[in-house]
Amino acid sequence: MARKVYIDNKPLEDALGLLFRRLEEAGFFAWETEEIDVVDALGRITAAPVSARRSSPHYSASAMDGIAVRAEETYAASETSPVRLQRGKQFIEVDTGDCVPREFDAVIMIEEVNFPDEDTAEIIAPAIPWQHIRSVGEDVIASQMIVPALYCLRPYEIGALLTSGVRKVRVVKQPRVGIIPTGTELVEPGGRELAPGQIMESNSQMLAGLCREWGAIPYRYPIVVDDRKLIKEAVLKCADSSDIIVVCSGSSAGREDFTASIVSEVGELLVHGLATRPGKPAILGLVGNKPVIGVPGYPVSAALVFELLARPIIYRKQGREVPSQPRMEARLSRKLASAMGVDEFVLVNLGMVGGQLLAYPLSRGAGITTSLVRSDGVIRVHRGTEGFEAGQTVEVELRRPSETIQKTVVTIGSHDLALDWLGNILNLKHGIRLTSTNVGSMGGLVALRRRETHFAGIHLLDPASGEYNVSYIRRYLAGEKVKLVNLVKRQQGLLVQKGNPLGIRGLQDLVRKGVRFVNRQKGAGTRILLDYLLGEKGIDPELINGYGREEFTHLAVAAAVQSDTADAGMGIYASARALDLDFIPVAEERYDLCFLPGLLDGPVYDKILEVIASEEFRCEVEQFGGYDLSLSGQVIWESD
Amino acid sequence: MARKVYIDNKPLEDALGLLFRRLEEAGFFAWETEEIDVVDALGRITAAPVSARRSSPHYSASAMDGIAVRAEETYAASETSPVRLQRGKQFIEVDTGDCVPREFDAVIMIEEVNFPDEDTAEIIAPAIPWQHIRSVGEDVIASQMIVPALYCLRPYEIGALLTSGVRKVRVVKQPRVGIIPTGTELVEPGGRELAPGQIMESNSQMLAGLCREWGAIPYRYPIVVDDRKLIKEAVLKCADSSDIIVVCSGSSAGREDFTASIVSEVGELLVHGLATRPGKPAILGLVGNKPVIGVPGYPVSAALVFELLARPIIYRKQGREVPSQPRMEARLSRKLASAMGVDEFVLVNLGMVGGQLLAYPLSRGAGITTSLVRSDGVIRVHRGTEGFEAGQTVEVELRRPSETIQKTVVTIGSHDLALDWLGNILNLKHGIRLTSTNVGSMGGLVALRRRETHFAGIHLLDPASGEYNVSYIRRYLAGEKVKLVNLVKRQQGLLVQKGNPLGIRGLQDLVRKGVRFVNRQKGAGTRILLDYLLGEKGIDPELINGYGREEFTHLAVAAAVQSDTADAGMGIYASARALDLDFIPVAEERYDLCFLPGLLDGPVYDKILEVIASEEFRCEVEQFGGYDLSLSGQVIWESD
Repeated sequence: MARKVYIDNKPLEDALGLLFRRLEEAGFFAWETEEIDVVDALGRITAAPVSARRSSPHYSASAMDGIAVRAEETYAASETSPVRLQRGKQFIEVDTGDCVPREFDAVIMIEEVNFPDEDTAEIIAPAIPWQHIRSVGEDVIASQMIVPALYCLRPYEIGALLTSGVRKVRVVKQPRVGIIPTGTELVEPGGRELAPGQIMESNSQMLAGLCREWGAIPYRYPIVVDDRKLIKEAVLKCADSSDIIVVCSGSSAGREDFTASIVSEVGELLVHGLATRPGKPAILGLVGNKPVIGVPGYPVSAALVFELLARPIIYRKQGREVPSQPRMEARLSRKLASAMGVDEFVLVNLGMVGGQLLAYPLSRGAGITTSLVRSDGVIRVHRGTEGFEAGQTVEVELRRPSETIQKTVVTIGSHDLALDWLGNILNLKHGIRLTSTNVGSMGGLVALRRRETHFAGIHLLDPASGEYNVSYIRRYLAGEKVKLVNLVKRQQGLLVQKGNPLGIRGLQDLVRKGVRFVNRQKGAGTRILLDYLLGEKGIDPELINGYGREEFTHLAVAAAVQSDTADAGMGIYASARALDLDFIPVAEERYDLCFLPGLLDGPVYDKILEVIASEEFRCEVEQFGGYDLSLSGQVIWESD
Repeated sequence: MARKVYIDNKPLEDALGLLFRRLEEAGFFAWETEEIDVVDALGRITAAPVSARRSSPHYSASAMDGIAVRAEETYAASETSPVRLQRGKQFIEVDTGDCVPREFDAVIMIEEVNFPDEDTAEIIAPAIPWQHIRSVGEDVIASQMIVPALYCLRPYEIGALLTSGVRKVRVVKQPRVGIIPTGTELVEPGGRELAPGQIMESNSQMLAGLCREWGAIPYRYPIVVDDRKLIKEAVLKCADSSDIIVVCSGSSAGREDFTASIVSEVGELLVHGLATRPGKPAILGLVGNKPVIGVPGYPVSAALVFELLARPIIYRKQGREVPSQPRMEARLSRKLASAMGVDEFVLVNLGMVGGQLLAYPLSRGAGITTSLVRSDGVIRVHRGTEGFEAGQTVEVELRRPSETIQKTVVTIGSHDLALDWLGNILNLKHGIRLTSTNVGSMGGLVALRRRETHFAGIHLLDPASGEYNVSYIRRYLAGEKVKLVNLVKRQQGLLVQKGNPLGIRGLQDLVRKGVRFVNRQKGAGTRILLDYLLGEKGIDPELINGYGREEFTHLAVAAAVQSDTADAGMGIYASARALDLDFIPVAEERYDLCFLPGLLDGPVYDKILEVIASEEFRCEVEQFGGYDLSLSGQVIWESD
């Protein structure tokens, strides 16, 4: 079986340099322009300087409500000898903006005029020539350049251009980007259920959104199945009508990956394989002097490759440079190893804890769409370095306003669905964003000790005392000022498949032949509870099939059971309910939030407690079931 | 004649506080929501948390190209005793993304498999259970909250929502803003010429653009003439179909200003008259529990009032806060006086000169649309202060990316049209913005001495020697390191009306009875030249009608002549040509650029000289006429 390998492992700069050089030679970056109505030109880029066609004001305009006069006829006026002027001949009344006729050269404010009768105006001070008259062109003079070429039109320019008699403006055409999703496994977003192996096509829609943000117009093609002839046809058709051709997926070295060979055949393949992570399988080529980009199928890779390769092309095609992204320096929460030979891009969360900006690397899995959603920024680990140590200061390119990051509350620890509801209400009511990272209860205490989280959700049973949390805090946060606040009490139990087909009734059934278990990771409160209960019942963990298979959240355990890769797992009622599984209660436990108040602004702490006490939060939690709110919001324990 | 006065002089915070309180009471801010397709939801705000409807992957998926196996059947494999597996029964081939059927629990990479024959796979290492399998929900688990309420959807979220089976999303409706332009003097942007007194309606288009930037949908109404009944009808109609009613102009106290009285009649007038400059005549009210804003007619006032009053309402109606605008500290180039009783907002240019960020206040005229175009930021002078001194550090709210400001070259001095072409090409070729302020040649030297400009355009004739510029530099920039570079030589002369109806042939005709002159300001090179020539010819300036009337640029002089408020003025050929006037040559002069190299980056200086020498620049200038480029780009003089 012949399998292709990547042709290249080309450094990003070399790949872009090569592509841009070839596109320059091909004249690709010469702008196309179009003339459009000024009123439709918001956000568009001028293709040439735009000059005023008319002065504004285009006539001598009164700047006041008053009377227009000839200054020389007022020179004699004083308080003691007022001057009287005759309506029509020596003055006319004008409002602000009215035309001052040629025979007058000054305006006197209405407040300074007396009208002894209808036809007479009396003044007691002389007028200075041209006073209170806006001269022609005071604002803008015909022929004056309003904006240069390559200027992005804002609402102010729209107003100024109309004012100066410009109704049409020549602008740079928005680049058209044709996006072709390929893959027999892909399904259009639509009503029907997906079969195993099928994937909802979503990358093209994400890339289309990015195109719009960069000023281009995306054209999404229908999905093309993995048929070389059909994909080739789509590429050629796209090359006819678009400026930039994007082929989604089909760029790895798998059996159905035709993109590179098609580009070679109908155009020129410049690069197949980038020295970046993610993004390795990217393709760059030319078809008919237009750039073709082959984008990997995994969403994180797709987004990154598109940003690295398509964004600079799209901006350049509009005569613009990619705007520099805002950056911040942050302390890295954990070691970030990276291969020497590649530029690696790592998505991170950011949060200001105890006055220090921290960067928390997210999962580096290229298939984790939610990392894109969660990430606040990107760290670039340059080629030739092996990464960064924990605690090192790194530069982060922001993907969210720094304002949002400043208002972020970080929670690291055990997961509970109530945290999501808490976060939602905090955002709704107070504009506070909650980012939660699920590393289990012990992980939360460690993060607190390292001052890397504002608070930690924990549910740690002390096997010696049967008590929750406090003994762990005493041990792991000795000497710290701590507040322990209850969030909820909750049901722990066994999650089993709908209808409980194996008839599991309790922990003792986990050792039965044919029962596949899925466990939580070491340090998770649920794992500690399980081990405690197994010990109490004298059940040997070694006899449980799957005891060594670990997942990191309740929901992940529930998903394993629901998808039939396991028959039982330990977790909270809420996760069984969320995935419609059966639930066998085993214990009730206390899930508390552990705060180091020094790390969090007092008012923010107060708002969190306020939300936990709110009717809205209680309603949400109670509705879901499996929770007891009798202690919610109470300070359970405080260090001295 | 009864004239209304403003009812209020209400501080901004009080006005907004009152309005928001009343809108809260009226329930105005309760969001309206709508369900839309996820693919159309870019940039929209979620109205509720959105949770995954399907896990992703929704099946156990191979993470590699390889074979799916049962791990326990591979445990015995080693290099010395390979294990052979039978196709179909013990393994199947899978590509990345393929479904791993229930009976298998591990994937072995294709690179680690031998195929001795079609039906047999041979491996030399055991597989670990679940290796290279993406478990169900690895990315996202059904029921998991993807985004909370009040979250602005980016392309990443569009992708993630589609991936997790969400096709419709409930979002906050975009507020509808009805904008009613009123005024008998207004004309729709269209083909016909404007009569004196008529004004092109442009404010509504500017405000519509601002609405779009803030997430609202503007509906612009046709122009309504100053007829109380018609305006009232338009307001009522608008209140029926829009969330926010905006009445343009008609909010001052002039004779045709009905807005306040109409709001009083059909709703409730809350505020008429704000203690802000500009923006004093603003109106705030309620009609049918909806906010009405009366926006002044002058464009700068209109933009400011709309930003102060409409923006917070539009954001709040979407459940959002107005994003905080980026700010920078800058040194004020000149004193900024302000009345104690008002909040004053002053538009400024910004530029980094000699390592220091400087703020240059722009004209405070409310009618100067071009100030809105030119401004880089706004300074707020708070109520209760009298303004700022020159040199004081002030906070500037930015209206342009700080990147653009960093790349700005500042020129203050005499004006020449060639500066506009220079700026245009600098922007085109190098992304460098040139902002030019016209204060005359002497003003330019003063700005250089105060280190407030990168360079100054000057054309200063020394009456003693008949030489240009150098003697002035020696005197006013003594001890400074200076480079003097020629931009152009140019024709100076008299600008007279088309066809020269008064038969003016030279300076001697300026003293003729019936000839109205318009002069340049003191310190302008043209003024100095005129005075020199008058002296040479023994003409008494006192005898020239209009010698005391001063304009600040060549174009302003030309505009005065063109609009028939003057018969002659002194200026360059280019300005006569621009406004289609007749031109009587009087002298040729040298227009140089004076640099203090210490204030400007070397590479930027080089680029400016490169552009002056470029074919593109020469072409543009030559085409226009009246210029001599024989010295252009030459260093005329350098200090030792």
